[in-house]
Amino acid sequence: MPALIFRVASIRSSLFAPINLPHFLSSKPTALSLFSTLRTRSQMESYATSSGSSKLLFRQLFEKESCTYTYLLADVSHPDKPALLIDPVDKMVDRDLNLINELGLKLVYAMNTHVHADHITGTGLIKTKVPGVKSVISKASASKADVFLEPGDKVTFGDLFLEARPTPGHTIGCLTYVTGDGADQPQPRMAFTGDTLLIRGCGRTDFQGGNSEQLYESVHSQIFTLPNDTLVYPAHDYKGFTVSTVGEERQYNPRLTKDKEGFKAIMENLNLAYPKMIDVAVPANMVCGLQDLISKV
Amino acid sequence: MPALIFRVASIRSSLFAPINLPHFLSSKPTALSLFSTLRTRSQMESYATSSGSSKLLFRQLFEKESCTYTYLLADVSHPDKPALLIDPVDKMVDRDLNLINELGLKLVYAMNTHVHADHITGTGLIKTKVPGVKSVISKASASKADVFLEPGDKVTFGDLFLEARPTPGHTIGCLTYVTGDGADQPQPRMAFTGDTLLIRGCGRTDFQGGNSEQLYESVHSQIFTLPNDTLVYPAHDYKGFTVSTVGEERQYNPRLTKDKEGFKAIMENLNLAYPKMIDVAVPANMVCGLQDLISKV
Repeated sequence: MPALIFRVASIRSSLFAPINLPHFLSSKPTALSLFSTLRTRSQMESYATSSGSSKLLFRQLFEKESCTYTYLLADVSHPDKPALLIDPVDKMVDRDLNLINELGLKLVYAMNTHVHADHITGTGLIKTKVPGVKSVISKASASKADVFLEPGDKVTFGDLFLEARPTPGHTIGCLTYVTGDGADQPQPRMAFTGDTLLIRGCGRTDFQGGNSEQLYESVHSQIFTLPNDTLVYPAHDYKGFTVSTVGEERQYNPRLTKDKEGFKAIMENLNLAYPKMIDVAVPANMVCGLQDLISKV
Repeated sequence: MPALIFRVASIRSSLFAPINLPHFLSSKPTALSLFSTLRTRSQMESYATSSGSSKLLFRQLFEKESCTYTYLLADVSHPDKPALLIDPVDKMVDRDLNLINELGLKLVYAMNTHVHADHITGTGLIKTKVPGVKSVISKASASKADVFLEPGDKVTFGDLFLEARPTPGHTIGCLTYVTGDGADQPQPRMAFTGDTLLIRGCGRTDFQGGNSEQLYESVHSQIFTLPNDTLVYPAHDYKGFTVSTVGEERQYNPRLTKDKEGFKAIMENLNLAYPKMIDVAVPANMVCGLQDLISKV
């Protein structure tokens, strides 16, 4: 068996530059700070994990039972290191908050892309554990929350922001959160699509005000119009994918590459089982996951 | 309930720059091409998903049963888009190869960080499906493969490379693959640590030539000496974490922040069950996962 062993130590000196020190730790004062609450903070230096922006710390977190992704975003160049969570899951709240504490972040928003039917949101539980955190959802979802978003609204954390794009179809109140398109915002852009656009798939449209034609129009007008290199981060993946791009989904999504009539026909013939968590999850998620603590949320 | 609705459309014009087009699609000819095999390639334009390098396309893939992460890396600035897989799982090979095909990549190497005991590697199966792919493992693992790596060896794909750092302790042949430290390599660096260093944990050391003292020394000499912002991508995670950093693990790893004696005491008292897959997986993985096809690998 031929073995191809390659050693390039001899060209090491010409190829290698001195190790770069993190350049994003230089805090930039800003007049835009929304967060004045004093708090105990870990001494951990936070390192950006999405290197497209020296400001953005990004973490993707997974919950195995419902295959749900929770996303943590923070502006680590801001003195407060303000952070937000997208689609936290109730049973993973301690994991998420512990990580936020270790990273020295200040959690400001606990957001949902929509009223989930397959797991209970962690937003209400987070509010009981971290005073001052605001829960966020679309106004169109008709749910309880502290902040109700309308199409085009911005959610600002430090110098970064998410834009709320209306993408109804899986539910009537679905939003896709998209990072900004300014030069000081993460590049490539990132789209948190909830259940509207999944990797090589999409959310079902047969419950919660779902409408396949509306979902099709939402994806094509609000997501597929983003640059092709925009990173697609869905609320779920069942095959072990973690990320896709708008360009990939425009080319390879087996449902959304069809024309509208073809798409509607696919969605009408999925023959899916009744969602096993829906009768528990939806009423709970209408009130931030805390049915017995409505007064607190 | 006070609702804090924020709309900043009025400052949009000053904050937003024109949408950037992908700047990394300009192919750079190189004399270093190792790959001359003709092949059918998808017409998909590949977009880098680790934006720290305009060259690197990066995907993290998950296998739920054994909680294994497989990593896909490719140099998409190179005309051939050469790619490699780290720690592929046999049952997920079709998913991985389909993605590689869709992205228009040319798979060159199928690598293992070590001889796994909890799942069967996909490297042999990949070789049967994609002629020309080379399987890669450490020489110290004493396994079958096409390429045997020794400490410090480089695995080159296009203009990018991984450095093989010896990190024995979980098994005698464990390697950690680290992206280069040159200015033209991904920043921050990325360390694929196998089972040597897990997020807030580490691999067991009671089988396969495991040695807790050796694992401790491996982590401290080969991984914790990397820059703090180096991204840590392990072979497994059981709590839904996808990535950590060297800085975080140096500060928060509950085992490896102990002194050596403290660490050894922890590892000696884990009282773990016998690995349920070990008697099947290890013999198979010594031959790229294909016991009945030894002659092919």
